[in-house]
This record gives sequence, structure tokens and C-alpha cells, in this order.
Amino acid sequence: MKKRIVIIGMGFGGIHAARTLAGKGHEVVLVDRNNYHLFQPLLYQVATAGLEQESIAHPLRAMARHWQPGTRFELAEATGIDFARREVHTDARTIPYDYLVIGAGSVTNFFGLEGVQRHSFDLKELKDAEVLRNHILTAFERAVHEPDPARRRALMTFVIVGGGPTGVEFAGALIELVHFVLAKDYPELSTRAARVVLVESNDKLLAAMPENLQDYTLKKLRRMSVEVLLNARVVDAAPDRVIFHDGAVIPAHTLFWSAGVKAAPLAAALDVTAKPGGRVPVEPDLTLPGHPEVFVIGDMAYFEQEGLPLPMTAPVATQMGIYAGQAIVAKEAGSPVKPFRFRDKGSMATIGRNSAVARAFGINFRGYAAWLIWLLLHLYYLIGFRNRIVVMLNWVWYYWYHERQVRLITHRTGGHRQFEECK
Amino acid sequence: MKKRIVIIGMGFGGIHAARTLAGKGHEVVLVDRNNYHLFQPLLYQVATAGLEQESIAHPLRAMARHWQPGTRFELAEATGIDFARREVHTDARTIPYDYLVIGAGSVTNFFGLEGVQRHSFDLKELKDAEVLRNHILTAFERAVHEPDPARRRALMTFVIVGGGPTGVEFAGALIELVHFVLAKDYPELSTRAARVVLVESNDKLLAAMPENLQDYTLKKLRRMSVEVLLNARVVDAAPDRVIFHDGAVIPAHTLFWSAGVKAAPLAAALDVTAKPGGRVPVEPDLTLPGHPEVFVIGDMAYFEQEGLPLPMTAPVATQMGIYAGQAIVAKEAGSPVKPFRFRDKGSMATIGRNSAVARAFGINFRGYAAWLIWLLLHLYYLIGFRNRIVVMLNWVWYYWYHERQVRLITHRTGGHRQFEECK
Repeated sequence: MKKRIVIIGMGFGGIHAARTLAGKGHEVVLVDRNNYHLFQPLLYQVATAGLEQESIAHPLRAMARHWQPGTRFELAEATGIDFARREVHTDARTIPYDYLVIGAGSVTNFFGLEGVQRHSFDLKELKDAEVLRNHILTAFERAVHEPDPARRRALMTFVIVGGGPTGVEFAGALIELVHFVLAKDYPELSTRAARVVLVESNDKLLAAMPENLQDYTLKKLRRMSVEVLLNARVVDAAPDRVIFHDGAVIPAHTLFWSAGVKAAPLAAALDVTAKPGGRVPVEPDLTLPGHPEVFVIGDMAYFEQEGLPLPMTAPVATQMGIYAGQAIVAKEAGSPVKPFRFRDKGSMATIGRNSAVARAFGINFRGYAAWLIWLLLHLYYLIGFRNRIVVMLNWVWYYWYHERQVRLITHRTGGHRQFEECK
Repeated sequence: MKKRIVIIGMGFGGIHAARTLAGKGHEVVLVDRNNYHLFQPLLYQVATAGLEQESIAHPLRAMARHWQPGTRFELAEATGIDFARREVHTDARTIPYDYLVIGAGSVTNFFGLEGVQRHSFDLKELKDAEVLRNHILTAFERAVHEPDPARRRALMTFVIVGGGPTGVEFAGALIELVHFVLAKDYPELSTRAARVVLVESNDKLLAAMPENLQDYTLKKLRRMSVEVLLNARVVDAAPDRVIFHDGAVIPAHTLFWSAGVKAAPLAAALDVTAKPGGRVPVEPDLTLPGHPEVFVIGDMAYFEQEGLPLPMTAPVATQMGIYAGQAIVAKEAGSPVKPFRFRDKGSMATIGRNSAVARAFGINFRGYAAWLIWLLLHLYYLIGFRNRIVVMLNWVWYYWYHERQVRLITHRTGGHRQFEECK
């Protein structure tokens, strides 16, 4: 019997659920507040002028074409769910469902630090990357005319909080943008004074990686002139400085926050006692307790395996999405549904333009080999053949010419006024 | 003796002046309110989801690198000029000059029609293209859920005012987007009811072209299902309709205005009696009357040749820019300066994905041959090798697959609320 399956959120979880359910004889409704799937792991490349924003976004209606018959897309933002009537409330319409897959993702966690939230940048949406790129380039334009050397240095100082893959990758890309590209764009500036500072509250970077890869990453970043501060916590920020828990102050006009994420606000509407990070605890088959027709996947879901909660990463969301699709098909067929099990195929992080660390196939890779694996895997998972070509082109260009081509400030804000100073 | 030449505006005029002056021993200061050169002729392709915005914008500092020594860039918006003290006032600093080249371009001319200005879209800046693309796609998303067939049609009706190259090219690209791409993206919509209406107040399109090419263009557009209204003038607009001078009303949620341009506001600060379109009358050597060290070029300049003012186009601006650079070098060398003379090498306009009209090398081309010439010339003049590759890639993709890859709505505005209706 044909059922209607509504999927909220077209991130890694949602699109893999949709792909799994395509052509299985049901009506599949894809719901997202954007009309594209965003490849979030590459947002930092847009922010450091290495990719166009469109390369990492793929129109959902284009994807839905391949999932016919039965799949359609609705541009809407889910605001709540009526479990009794089995309806999704959105800012546009109410959508009834037989099955529901919720993968609305996560938002940045500022841990209640108001000053930080107000004065920092993060990278979760496409607009964030453009805003950050504009800010970085405008900071250098401002520095050109700043007479005071200390204030000039502060304009060229970038503090990144969070020593996980996001922070590490952004730090590596940013230091290279400054030293290899902006140094040539701004001959009138002494970009030598520029600083990229990576801050981690723990005593190591990339906590999820094996120890030798953590060490390699730390040494490589420092060799690239990234200042790495371990056992340091940022507690406050102003437009022109960053304040630490031990009283340390770094004058900087750019604070990038990648210290943590929490479940999307929709999780609060699900009427379940949240776990750490606002995540929703789920049954072994990823369903919401008491609602066997509702699946929660990806960053929103709290699922323990071997006593530890699964991390909020793309591979987890991907496997959960596939599982949810298979589980729905099985339920409709009356087949038994095995519990979900995440298979950790490894993880990776780039460090600049030709180095990375990766744990894959049970082996630790680092350096150039890791970077190649990273490249191929990202190209593989990037949606859309044309996007792959464009991204490949950009990376080849960057690799050979050390050029980041997208150094554009795309929205004039009266730029010179956005760099306030506090007295 | 080394002089300082300040160039205001990095459009076609400004960059060709800069290129001509590079390495001639003077200090050249490039001033623009954006940090990139914008290839305006291809804005309509970004607006119809055929190109990424970054493909038609090239960072100015990257260009300045090749014009060393002596050339530098300042991100600033010129607000006025003190001719007595020979200083340019900007929103950032005051810049003194020995020579000044003003090429600040043009803005859209709404001819005092307030309703039109408030409710229409135009294409002069990069942001315009993104806004218009978002609007077009959002209109279709809205149409999906509109129950009233007439209102649904109005959402899919696009009125374009102006039968010059801009309007013709946009109309052709838009009708193809609707029929070949969106028809597949929106299987739940009957895109048959969509309308693209091109409005021209004259009795012919492409007034600057030979008559047989005008006829060809008219017939080709109509064969593609573009409705072409000749001898029609739009006098007012509301969010959901377009009103004509003869009382005709077309229900439409999108009005695109390409009926004319006028000189940039900076022209008013030049203290000269303006010509039609706000343009600044210049001497035979393109200098401002009374100020032999100040050149006005491009869309801002009013220059008659054979009794007629030169049009406000890219080739005119380009040749004026080169001339201004050469004239400055000649003046400094004490050599005589010949008067400016524009050499009309032809003009062209595309009509959809494989057709065009072109007058080049003294011959009229149309159809596929004209389109090839258009393609090669645009690729040639596009700045930046990488941009050429990306644009070529997009066009090849479009030609073979009829796919416009950039169907992204990039800024959620709460989209469903921006389509008001008037009672």
C-alpha cells in the first residue's frame, strides 16, 4: 500500500533517506527551507575564497527529478509536528504524513556566551561563508589605511575557536590565503604581522583521531605559522578583541567559532527530554520513543553505540538516512527491522593545500596520501557531476598556481564603518 | 616626471585605462566601491541561473598585480571632486591627483516612474542578478501551491521592458529557463501557462542593428513563445501587475526594467550642464571642459560623432579608456593628442542558447554563426583565464544538456511573504 513519507531537512541524512526511498512505490515529500542541498564540509573553502558558493550547493528539484515517480519537493520551514494528527506544520502549509523522517541538522553552540555570539562568525549556512569571506577581505582593505601598527595587526588577526576538523581546516586554509595570496594582493601591507590563532580547550587537536595524527596536525599547523593555543578557553568577545578564561586578551577583529554544535531548534518541538546538545534520544531503530512511524536522524539524533553517543558528523547522518529509508520499506513489507549500527569508516581533515590526516580502511594516513584520499572522497560525495568538475578545476588551479580565485567582497556594507573599536 | 593618475570606476573604461597606463612610469591609483571588475553583459546569465556570480567578477587586486610597479587599488566610493585642489573625495579618504579618469558608469533610468522603480527589477550590479534569480525561482515555488489558476499564471508571468540587447537577451534566456529547465523541475506545475512578455516603446527591437537582423530577432523570439509587444509603454506597476499607457494591464509578479540607463550620480558632482541621460559633455580629447587633466569616459561621457552621441556601451567605454591612457602618456611626453574617434566594430545580441544576431567585420550574421562569434568574443573579453574556463564549462553544459545548473535561492527572505497582492 502506498504511503506518504515526509522528510524534513535535506542535509546528508535527508538526501540519503530520499535516495533510498526513491522508486519504492511510496509518495516521498522532501521539505527544506532552502531549495538546495548544501555540502557543509566545504563551507570553509567558500569562506577562504577558494570556491564559489554555488559549487557546494545543489538544487533539490534537480535531484528530485531522478527520484521519480513519487518524489516531490516543498520549499518550507518546519515549525512543529502534530504527532496525534500526523501532520507537519510549516511556514507555508500543513503536510500530513504516514511516516516522518526528521533530519533538520544542527546549529552553532555558543554555550551561552553572549558576547561571543554577538561578535563571532560561524559556518553553518551558505550565507555565513559569503559574509565571512567579505569580512576577511574587508579587514585587509581596512588595514591598508590604518596608521597605527598595533591596530593594523589586530585587523589582520584571526582567532579560531575549536580544534576539531572544522577549526583545523579553516585555520590551514586561512593561513595559506594570507601568506600565499593576500601577501601578493596587498603589496602595500606587511602581511607578516598577520596572525591566525587556533584555540582549543582540550590539550589536543582532533580529539576523535589517533594520537600520532593529532601530533602530526599540531606540528604541521605550527610549521605553517598557525599559533595553536591548547588548554585555552574563550569566554567573551568584543568587536576588536577576544578574552580568555585566564585573563589573556588577543586584539583581533575576527573571531570564528567552531567550538561545538547543538541540535536544530525543531528538536525542542518534539516533546522529548533532550540529551546533551539538545539532541533527541532515539530507539535502536532510530524512531522517536512512542512514535514508531517517526525517525530522527543526523545531528538531531542521540544514539549510543558501545556506551558512547555517535558524533554529529556527515557519515553518521548519511548512514542513518539510508537506514531510515530501508527501515520504512521493511516495515511496510512486514519484514523485521534490525537495529541501527554505525560503521566507522574513518575520518579526515585537511591541513592546507596538500596535506591532511585521515584514518581510513583501518589505517592512519597523513601528508600527501591523506590529502589525495580526502580529495577523491569529497569529490565522490559532492552532488552533481558539474559541481565536481568546477570544484576540481578550482582545486587544480589552487594547487598549481596557489591562487584562490574568488577574492570578492560581494555586498558593500559601507565596509569602513563595520570595524568598530571599543574604548 | 612621475605623475599620479587616479581612475574612478573599474568598469570597461577604467580597466582599459589602467591597462594602458601600466608600466608607463606613473603612479596609478584604481578606485572602485567594489573590489572586483564586473562583466555586466553577462549579468542576465546569472539572473537566469546559467552562471555563478563569481564567474563574471574578477578581483581588482589580482588584476593590479600584473600592472606593477606603480599601480595600486583603493576600495572606496567617490563622492565628489575638488577641481581646484585636484582631490577626489571618497567615503574613506581624500585622494590627490595629477590626472583624473572618471568612469563611474551608469545606473538604471526609470524616467521618473515611481511605481515602476519601486516594483521592478534591474540588472546593474552583482547583487541584482542574485536577487532576480531568487525572485524568479521563488515565484515558481509559490505557484506550486497557488490554488487560483489566474494568480498562478500571474506568478509565472514575466514582463521585460526594453527591446535593446539587454531585454532581448534576458527574454531569450528566461523563456528557455522556463520551458527547458523549470518545466522539468516543476512537474506538478503546468508551466505551459507561463508567459515572457517583451515590451518595446518603439516599433522595432534592437534599434541599433540593421533592419533584417531586427526582423530575424523578432521572429525568432516569437517562435520561442516570447510575446513581443511593440509600440507599448509601461507607465506604472504594482506588486502583481504592470500598467500600460493605453490602459492595458498585464497581471504579473515580475517586472524587469531595461528601458534605459543614465549617468552615475557622480556626474552631477562635476558641475557641468548635463546632456540627455545626465551625461557629461566632453572635449574632442574626452577631457572635462576647462580641466585638461580630467577625463570622463564610458557611460558618463557625452561625445558626438557624425552628429550623433555615442551609445552607452562596453565597446565605447573600452576604446575611451584606452584613449584616455594614451592621451595622458602623450601629454606628459609633450606629444600632440589626436581627437578621440570611436571605431564601430559591430554589435551583437544572443537569442537563446544557440542563436544570435551580430554585425561584425561589416557583415550581418545571424543564427548559429552569430552565436559562435558572440561566444568567442565574450570569452575573449572576460577577464581571467579561470573565469573563461568556468564560463565555458557552464555554457557547454547548458548547450549539451540544456541544464542551467545554478537554480539556487540563496537568501531566504521568508519568501512566501514577498509576493503581496493588491486589492
